[in-house]
Amino acid sequence: MNTAVNTFQPTALTTIRRGAKRASFDKEALYQFIDTTLLCFIGFTHNEQVRVIPTCQWRDGDYIYWHGHAKAGNVAGTNNQQKVCITIGEIDGLVMARSAFHHSINYHSAMIYGVPELIADPHEKRDQLKKLIDKISINRWDNLRPITDKEIQATGIMKLHIEEVSFKLRTGNPIDDEEDTNWPIWAGVIPLEKQWGTPVQDALQTSTYALPESPL
Amino acid sequence: MNTAVNTFQPTALTTIRRGAKRASFDKEALYQFIDTTLLCFIGFTHNEQVRVIPTCQWRDGDYIYWHGHAKAGNVAGTNNQQKVCITIGEIDGLVMARSAFHHSINYHSAMIYGVPELIADPHEKRDQLKKLIDKISINRWDNLRPITDKEIQATGIMKLHIEEVSFKLRTGNPIDDEEDTNWPIWAGVIPLEKQWGTPVQDALQTSTYALPESPL
Repeated sequence: MNTAVNTFQPTALTTIRRGAKRASFDKEALYQFIDTTLLCFIGFTHNEQVRVIPTCQWRDGDYIYWHGHAKAGNVAGTNNQQKVCITIGEIDGLVMARSAFHHSINYHSAMIYGVPELIADPHEKRDQLKKLIDKISINRWDNLRPITDKEIQATGIMKLHIEEVSFKLRTGNPIDDEEDTNWPIWAGVIPLEKQWGTPVQDALQTSTYALPESPL
Repeated sequence: MNTAVNTFQPTALTTIRRGAKRASFDKEALYQFIDTTLLCFIGFTHNEQVRVIPTCQWRDGDYIYWHGHAKAGNVAGTNNQQKVCITIGEIDGLVMARSAFHHSINYHSAMIYGVPELIADPHEKRDQLKKLIDKISINRWDNLRPITDKEIQATGIMKLHIEEVSFKLRTGNPIDDEEDTNWPIWAGVIPLEKQWGTPVQDALQTSTYALPESPL
């Protein structure tokens, strides 16, 4: 494995000082995390005030993408040459220790820094909107009412090259103080599980159609 | 109901311009959202760079709290009189429309702005750490190995008065263009469900103990 290609090099911004043993520089693991989660939190400043806006992300190659109305905060507010911070965080489980102090969370967390670009080319925009729909449900795009030029125009899409990244995760059991090992209380991990529930069809539909494929 | 008490007044920062029909100023609904979620995303600037750090939040009255090592970014980086933005966002379901453009997400999203305070009083810190453990599992605190003064000292706790808030949510079916109503593809909502999985006991424990109560 070529580590120059498959890992990220820490910068002054992404060098993990606290909890460094939880750092990961594995590009494949990061990309999988981006691809299997839906919600990122975009931090930027507007009129010198920090804002953090949740939005859906997707990925194509070494870029992360998001979209919104062309005038929405997550698009217009990040289209001004500032270096934003995009954070994705997911809880995998509760870590129940024998002392309050050693309680923790199993998690994945990625912080991606960079200056985003607004996509101007309508063909690139169309291709990326298909990627977003593909992420949510493969094979759906071709069966939708086709997207119009006006809809593409009304949509702002930002992209950011993924290169300045801090990626951390915690897994496994609580790490208690050794002298607490036999403290008489249950200790371990309670996993947090996510799953898609029973689809609820739009009441306006009177026909039966195949359910969407493989929602992420 | 006294609306002055039970709702938030929008400020210049929290007036929702896009998607205003999705705005909520219901204090009780916001507090329930804060109480039933675990992860918030704290946006702040450090050396003029925006950072967004995921951290666990809890609430006591009209304050939201978070903690970390006293020198950690989410504590030290927000203890400098700047107005931070704390965002909580949860996806409730995928909204599958008949056109790509009208696909959406059912969600809850809160953005809370304010200048946090570091809690100095060790008694207040102890009380709040108990609140955090109570949030995760009621009745657990009293059975843990008691917290020490040194552990309290090593923990930094920030609090923020909840008053400048933007709270949005989307529920329900896709809103397609009327002329697309009969387009032949499944439309509706696919709910996202979260649940606690089977607890995994720490392999270092050889005795059987009662499972933690009511993890959030």
